[in-house]
Amino acid sequence: MTEENTYLLGVDSGGSHVTADCYDEQGEVVGHGEAGPGSIVLDLPQTLANIVSAIEKATAALPNKDWKCQRILIGIAGWESSQQQELFATEITSRLRDYAGQVSLTSDARLALLSALEGQDGLLAIAGTGSIVYAKNAGRLSRAGGWGWLLGDEGSAYQIAAEAVKAVLHTNDQGQVHPLAHLVLSYFSASSIPELVAAFYQAPRPQIAGLAKQLAGQADAAPIFAHQAKLLAQQILLLFKRNPGINPLLALAGSVLTHNPLMQAELGRIISQQAPALTIKIANSPNTRGVLFN
Amino acid sequence: MTEENTYLLGVDSGGSHVTADCYDEQGEVVGHGEAGPGSIVLDLPQTLANIVSAIEKATAALPNKDWKCQRILIGIAGWESSQQQELFATEITSRLRDYAGQVSLTSDARLALLSALEGQDGLLAIAGTGSIVYAKNAGRLSRAGGWGWLLGDEGSAYQIAAEAVKAVLHTNDQGQVHPLAHLVLSYFSASSIPELVAAFYQAPRPQIAGLAKQLAGQADAAPIFAHQAKLLAQQILLLFKRNPGINPLLALAGSVLTHNPLMQAELGRIISQQAPALTIKIANSPNTRGVLFN
Repeated sequence: MTEENTYLLGVDSGGSHVTADCYDEQGEVVGHGEAGPGSIVLDLPQTLANIVSAIEKATAALPNKDWKCQRILIGIAGWESSQQQELFATEITSRLRDYAGQVSLTSDARLALLSALEGQDGLLAIAGTGSIVYAKNAGRLSRAGGWGWLLGDEGSAYQIAAEAVKAVLHTNDQGQVHPLAHLVLSYFSASSIPELVAAFYQAPRPQIAGLAKQLAGQADAAPIFAHQAKLLAQQILLLFKRNPGINPLLALAGSVLTHNPLMQAELGRIISQQAPALTIKIANSPNTRGVLFN
Repeated sequence: MTEENTYLLGVDSGGSHVTADCYDEQGEVVGHGEAGPGSIVLDLPQTLANIVSAIEKATAALPNKDWKCQRILIGIAGWESSQQQELFATEITSRLRDYAGQVSLTSDARLALLSALEGQDGLLAIAGTGSIVYAKNAGRLSRAGGWGWLLGDEGSAYQIAAEAVKAVLHTNDQGQVHPLAHLVLSYFSASSIPELVAAFYQAPRPQIAGLAKQLAGQADAAPIFAHQAKLLAQQILLLFKRNPGINPLLALAGSVLTHNPLMQAELGRIISQQAPALTIKIANSPNTRGVLFN
């Protein structure tokens, strides 16, 4: 095998944008590219174009003009429920013929699992703006939660933020002032409770979720993080119980679980009490790294 | 006083439509009219026109051409937080000069309180698509809850419906089938859990809230009604505690509290345990009736 075809290309094709990373033999990133939305359920030609564009950027600086990747692994949002898997596979394979000997397609979830668990079986809890828990057991993928901001997303930044606002309102109903009221009101540029409520309903969800980051350093927010950690832990334990014999590894991913010490500590405490067999690791490598473990 | 000027006109000027009822000396409805939206925060000229139109319909069939109402009471959505109270009062009084000797303006909440409590002090819990709890104590109005579908509305049809859908999803995560799954899936014309989730996010809120009515007769929905009744009871008890010496009368209004026996029974049980002094009455007369007690 010559040096030119030892590159591995991981592509994370998500709802809001596509990320492509080119890895060398040592698993180091040697090229990075990004492009627009990449969900298979949205505009299909656009998604194909964005994937090719991200790959072109990720490979633009490769030293040898005759390089070819050993393989490309693309994790695509909406893949599992898509009716267009075959059409998409044919199209993308023909477009990427010049770049790689082998092009594989999977869901963005499985790409994240491969990356976070480094190819092993185990559990993965993701909590960012939303949340979901996955299990990979003897190749079989299962999930818990992840039903979105209105029906699920326990432990997510959005739910943490919403719980904080509700706590401020509830304390106001009691004729008192919540210790987080000042922080919450200023975050939404509100000078009164009705203004806070109005601002919350007008704010885009990512902006609401951003409050979670502000709360991370606040001791008064500890009960909120503890509650959300408990809800997420319940889903992890549920999936662990439903997969007897699974490799006892739990990876934590997403901004809330990788950056928030209150959340991490509380989740770790519950898991070590209820499922002491589970080893917890923080997974903050990019999903594209999944290509190394396919 | 001649017969002509003994009529009383109540106008419920709400966010989605205006209702006007004309009452005779005995408090019987002798004329009814409806028109489009009537919130003061929306289109002001349109709201004025809709109020006049509803009143014209409600008085069209009055026998004596020379009649004049003794008074008109208009309860207006958004009244308390409006900056345009004075402008609105001037405009509406001049337009209604031909109809009444006295025109009074108040909030839609106070109109509902006057009607439900028949002019007395006390508490009013409303749970329809949304929910809120009011107290009227020595003329002073206070409230708890009512922060809308994302932040409050405990005990409302929307929250009952959302809790039922969440229960179905959670049981599905456990690898089981919730006893209400069939009913919930058919209500949303869904044949699978992902279809249910997709349909929920696409459905308008009143349609989601409509599920609560379907659940009303289901024994399997009892824990859901019990939980939502508990949340609403907490707000009632909070407001009762914050108003020492208030007349111990609790009126229940809105479709959920006037029509749902499971909800009524559970709320009644909690209130009689925690605040045995409170007398509960079901208030299902129209808000316009508030004019009789002003």
